[in-house]
Amino acid sequence: MNTENLTVLKIGGAVVEDEPSLDRLVRDFAAIPGPKVLVHGGGRSATALAGQLGVETRMVEGRRVTDDEMLRIVTMVYGGLVNKNIVARLQAAGVNALGMTGADMDIIRSHRRPLRNGIDYGWVGDVERADGQRLATLIHEGTTPVIAPLTHDGQGHLLNTNADTMAQTVACALASRFRVTLRFAFEKRGVMRDANDPKSFIPHITEQDFLRLRDEGVVYGGMLPKLENALQAIRSGVAEVRIGETRITA
Amino acid sequence: MNTENLTVLKIGGAVVEDEPSLDRLVRDFAAIPGPKVLVHGGGRSATALAGQLGVETRMVEGRRVTDDEMLRIVTMVYGGLVNKNIVARLQAAGVNALGMTGADMDIIRSHRRPLRNGIDYGWVGDVERADGQRLATLIHEGTTPVIAPLTHDGQGHLLNTNADTMAQTVACALASRFRVTLRFAFEKRGVMRDANDPKSFIPHITEQDFLRLRDEGVVYGGMLPKLENALQAIRSGVAEVRIGETRITA
Repeated sequence: MNTENLTVLKIGGAVVEDEPSLDRLVRDFAAIPGPKVLVHGGGRSATALAGQLGVETRMVEGRRVTDDEMLRIVTMVYGGLVNKNIVARLQAAGVNALGMTGADMDIIRSHRRPLRNGIDYGWVGDVERADGQRLATLIHEGTTPVIAPLTHDGQGHLLNTNADTMAQTVACALASRFRVTLRFAFEKRGVMRDANDPKSFIPHITEQDFLRLRDEGVVYGGMLPKLENALQAIRSGVAEVRIGETRITA
Repeated sequence: MNTENLTVLKIGGAVVEDEPSLDRLVRDFAAIPGPKVLVHGGGRSATALAGQLGVETRMVEGRRVTDDEMLRIVTMVYGGLVNKNIVARLQAAGVNALGMTGADMDIIRSHRRPLRNGIDYGWVGDVERADGQRLATLIHEGTTPVIAPLTHDGQGHLLNTNADTMAQTVACALASRFRVTLRFAFEKRGVMRDANDPKSFIPHITEQDFLRLRDEGVVYGGMLPKLENALQAIRSGVAEVRIGETRITA
């Protein structure tokens, strides 16, 4: 029985990309008690830099097609600009942050995504595993990993990787060592029966609830993979997942 | 008496900025026996990106004036592009690399450089200290720090920092725990009596030799601060400094 609580917080790109919301994030994250891990995005900044450099951003089903030039851009933006600015601010807030990609200390390994329906996503990684042992050692030494959405294939190539998946993989890899809460910061209050009615907010979802909500058509579209990911984390030993204020448990 | 050897290797920007020399670096660095630390530059790539973005690069006495826009650029290039590509390649070569700036784990703290002769260098850091204890812990756990030339001031600001100085500071901070060799990779064979005559190469320099060479005018210009830095490292307990193949000892 793991009694030490640990929080894995995933934040989207929008949160880290303007000064006031970045300040708020740093304050809120620093206030989370106990050991913690931050996983961040940065897509909007990458798209903005690509635009400045005259590189076209191509998205397929919400995923960024990553050719050589786009890989350079996301490596600069995710691994450098966004990651190091968060680290410097967390240090100022008293959090001993360590910025990492999956390549650093080999903490998250992936492989290049194979063609899907004829689509070549380029340098995009599908996650294989996170090294819970190394992450736990860092955390026990008082370090707070701050993870950018880049991994590597062990052959010397960096790979652009979905931050939600990385957060889930990290949470699962730590679940045998801590009582893990995985939190997805969310622009809405949480999961809702009616996206336009804040009063329809659903505070708590179990796997059985999910199956019912799915069959009723309440949960659909982009929320389906999010909740399926969340339930996958629960089945892998994560104690609780939160999407905004909605709690997902076994 | 510290008997475990450790190498701190400083490499300039040119080495990491084309594929063949980066491959050679990774191979050579991976082959260094025992614990080691890599400190890299990246100035040429930063200047190239600045050019693509229409940002003017201004150098004063060999140092990059770093306004807000240039800080974004060096954070992307040094902390992201150069650092993470080296890390991914070292991982493929079996070296458990961890890319870091001075902000990560608070390993190197600096303060913003005050005005000098009326020149405002902007977000440029003068190094205060390196945390030898934290670096030694990582190294003893089998990690190889790969350090980008960025530090922080503890107030949430990243600072563009001279990589030679960072390498020297790291070497000194580790000198009480290891027998440290500090190596500056160098485009020439080493220190020479006559820059145009390879046969005038000087294989070994002590502090007394340095004073004589300086008085004779053999060592001058940009080589003076390099050798003064090297001797400072020796006085701080570093066992040996190498500039190319020239050994500098007490």
